[in-house]
Amino acid sequence: MKTNPGRFFEDYRLGETIRHATPRTVTLGDVALYTALYGPRFAVQSSDAFARAIGYPRSPLDDLLTFHVVFGKTVPDISLNALANLGYAEGGFRRPVYPGETLSTVSEVIGLKESSNRQTGVVYVRSTGSDANGETVLSYCRWVLVKKRDPAAIIAQEHVPTFAKVVDPADLAGALPLLNAGAYDCELAGSPHRFGDYVVGERIDHVDGMTVEEAEHQIATRLYQNTAKVHFDGYAAKDTRFGRRLIYGGVVISLARALSFNGLGNAFALAGINAGRHVAPLFAGDTVYAWSEVLETAELPGRTDIGALRLRTVATKNQPCGNHPDKVGDAYDPSVILDLDYWAFMPR
Amino acid sequence: MKTNPGRFFEDYRLGETIRHATPRTVTLGDVALYTALYGPRFAVQSSDAFARAIGYPRSPLDDLLTFHVVFGKTVPDISLNALANLGYAEGGFRRPVYPGETLSTVSEVIGLKESSNRQTGVVYVRSTGSDANGETVLSYCRWVLVKKRDPAAIIAQEHVPTFAKVVDPADLAGALPLLNAGAYDCELAGSPHRFGDYVVGERIDHVDGMTVEEAEHQIATRLYQNTAKVHFDGYAAKDTRFGRRLIYGGVVISLARALSFNGLGNAFALAGINAGRHVAPLFAGDTVYAWSEVLETAELPGRTDIGALRLRTVATKNQPCGNHPDKVGDAYDPSVILDLDYWAFMPR
Amino acid sequence: MKTNPGRFFEDYRLGETIRHATPRTVTLGDVALYTALYGPRFAVQSSDAFARAIGYPRSPLDDLLTFHVVFGKTVPDISLNALANLGYAEGGFRRPVYPGETLSTVSEVIGLKESSNRQTGVVYVRSTGSDANGETVLSYCRWVLVKKRDPAAIIAQEHVPTFAKVVDPADLAGALPLLNAGAYDCELAGSPHRFGDYVVGERIDHVDGMTVEEAEHQIATRLYQNTAKVHFDGYAAKDTRFGRRLIYGGVVISLARALSFNGLGNAFALAGINAGRHVAPLFAGDTVYAWSEVLETAELPGRTDIGALRLRTVATKNQPCGNHPDKVGDAYDPSVILDLDYWAFMPR
Repeated sequence: MKTNPGRFFEDYRLGETIRHATPRTVTLGDVALYTALYGPRFAVQSSDAFARAIGYPRSPLDDLLTFHVVFGKTVPDISLNALANLGYAEGGFRRPVYPGETLSTVSEVIGLKESSNRQTGVVYVRSTGSDANGETVLSYCRWVLVKKRDPAAIIAQEHVPTFAKVVDPADLAGALPLLNAGAYDCELAGSPHRFGDYVVGERIDHVDGMTVEEAEHQIATRLYQNTAKVHFDGYAAKDTRFGRRLIYGGVVISLARALSFNGLGNAFALAGINAGRHVAPLFAGDTVYAWSEVLETAELPGRTDIGALRLRTVATKNQPCGNHPDKVGDAYDPSVILDLDYWAFMPR
Repeated sequence: MKTNPGRFFEDYRLGETIRHATPRTVTLGDVALYTALYGPRFAVQSSDAFARAIGYPRSPLDDLLTFHVVFGKTVPDISLNALANLGYAEGGFRRPVYPGETLSTVSEVIGLKESSNRQTGVVYVRSTGSDANGETVLSYCRWVLVKKRDPAAIIAQEHVPTFAKVVDPADLAGALPLLNAGAYDCELAGSPHRFGDYVVGERIDHVDGMTVEEAEHQIATRLYQNTAKVHFDGYAAKDTRFGRRLIYGGVVISLARALSFNGLGNAFALAGINAGRHVAPLFAGDTVYAWSEVLETAELPGRTDIGALRLRTVATKNQPCGNHPDKVGDAYDPSVILDLDYWAFMPR
Repeated sequence: MKTNPGRFFEDYRLGETIRHATPRTVTLGDVALYTALYGPRFAVQSSDAFARAIGYPRSPLDDLLTFHVVFGKTVPDISLNALANLGYAEGGFRRPVYPGETLSTVSEVIGLKESSNRQTGVVYVRSTGSDANGETVLSYCRWVLVKKRDPAAIIAQEHVPTFAKVVDPADLAGALPLLNAGAYDCELAGSPHRFGDYVVGERIDHVDGMTVEEAEHQIATRLYQNTAKVHFDGYAAKDTRFGRRLIYGGVVISLARALSFNGLGNAFALAGINAGRHVAPLFAGDTVYAWSEVLETAELPGRTDIGALRLRTVATKNQPCGNHPDKVGDAYDPSVILDLDYWAFMPR
């Protein structure tokens, strides 16, 4: 058979490395589409002149565009037969990516755990996105629930990895060039609030809402060459438990991040992903809202230009976030669709 | 509070200057999206080779892409709490903009007029879009009806500006490089009609219609980083008087301009905006048509290459324009959504 | 009248040449949109680094993007009053096209055949897309059924051309640079199957399905500056026999080609189009699937790097292709919408 049926749980081996197709040169065309699909307004990514003024050679890509391109490549090998995308951890953005660079992705299988009913299992991978020279630009861990082809198949070796609860921001500080924070023009950037203005425990309702259309999430997901059929095949979706196409979770992350500009306008670069969970699915016609909480603030060794904020951004559907819809114990408010714990850099 | 609640009427001061976020580098990616969203076919903007043949260094941006990017920046400061976008005047395109340039916008408050019921007021601004060196590329006046936070608030100083009914085309003639009009290939441009072929009073039905989808206007409006929530938040829109998302008026302007190619195929550059009014809202699923009338023709001092046509383009929804739907006295035909009076350059 | 009413059947003359508007510089912005609209994953077109490794100067455009841009220009002159797009033949891609190149199109009328009822006639054209230096990049023949303005009009000269059933792949071999096939990394390209792995008669179900939204096909069709009103005017479409907008057939070709990656992942370049027919219309909300059959395999004179596969790709709507829906005699399975016979290059 010449077509890719996707891997099933028993096809993975602990420790194996998978080189993913298809390498992708990211361009100004991708940047324009990213802007058009989510509406981000971070000045560093929007204006070459602004970026140059503070020390970048030009505007870097939005970090989440890099993330989605790196992630998209893993889908045909990791999640084509996945039943659920369970979580993210230990994500680190290693350096800015610029238009014209070519990205490719390799994943290492770092954990395997069969389910007790033997119908499925959890595959843990560390995926690493690299440039054309093989230098890492991003790595993150992800785990997904994957079907077994044959429930009777024996799993040779199992292992459940443990992840750092929080990435050490000191390890991420080298990701950005040394910046001239004095040249960072807060008025032009759209927010007067610098690193020192945020305090642990502070909660910010990002106010705005964004309704998602089928055409929008399909255009976005294809841009990343993410091939998961649940996002595109409306005919087959009729017979699923949802009865319709599912929106790629990365669309929710990007929308929440773009909405977070209203309140976090100077948190212009992502540093690391501590933990992430897609709590519930999003469908076309739903409206996404978001709020954030400041979990930690961190000064960075050798960096007087920037600090790192540890943020938890919660996205909801069809529920404005003035009351910060959250979880009580293990149970989430039914409106919550995303719970993302990450580090972002902000000028001091 | 760290989020932007938008300004209310009493927050503006006559004469104040507002520097808007977010600077934006416009790119070939934006150009491709502009083409894909509206379908313009003006040869100068479509082909570097065509543009070079007549004296441009390369294809400039469609002038309305420049307009929307410059306009989008004003929304968070001017029209976030606006109830209506009332009009445009004294618009002038000062020079072509090319991919790679960075645009930013400053607005001056040139007028304030409280409504008699003291619930609202009209804010008049002159918005100026500049390049990275601070050189003006576009300026225009706009007035919007804005809510008061507190009806009892006293307005210190009011003033109602007067606007030129028509921009003097002689002031705009320097906006284009001197062109080799002889090298302008009308066949390749798609229309045999040059400046001298149009006469005052001539009416042109642009024939074609374009239906607008929610995804299309959202993608367009985000591309311009226009944040007005009425365009994006379908959940909140359910409780408004329209019950659904409103389409950004600039989408109508761009569609009418693209449709006007059929009849005005050589009117390749906008020169100035004399007056503009969004007569009625457009919603997804509606089909836009347009017709134009030649109001004036003007030779330009020192320019034998081009002339200027003063055009009035009227756009309708769900009503073809063979009968030129118009206004009778002050009452518009119910199909009319846009009435735009502007100057365009055309080769002689 | 200044608007283009389109030509009617009696307006064409055998042997005449029509230079089409509007020249178009294709860019990285167009490439990003092409990726976002269809989701192609061929490594040569996706990655500059991959393309360079095998001998290209950089990634070329997807051949179908070239095709759609060249085709789009012909619409205002050839098919504005067409009732049906009947077929394609003798298509040849003459060389790769790169971002930054300007394309324009000329068509020669090579056949005219009035219908027996004298209401319509078939116009046959050979359309040639050229670069800014006039060098051919693509040519193909197409025939369309066009209305007569006046059924009584006399047609001076009629002729029905004959077309080669199959383009000779030896004539197309010069279209690609000499490649270093050893450097072609099948793992990175996403498929282990090279030229020698395909056998005549082999049938491949491409498995995946893609649902098309109104916004998507409109954005695509405008990108190509294709002006056929049946794709855009939902208001007028209500009164047609279909009652809704028709999707440009080129969208189906591009979707089928992108879906064909799953099974033909190394068939990275189109060589020629032998025959093509849009069997039935596609509408928004429909889901496209595809399968392919290997009709021939051809070694190419002087080329040890690549071979040519003659493929027949059949696209369906709302019908997965596990059973290869086909035609029996002259009658197609009701799900079939496209039947395309073409040559593609593949590394040896």
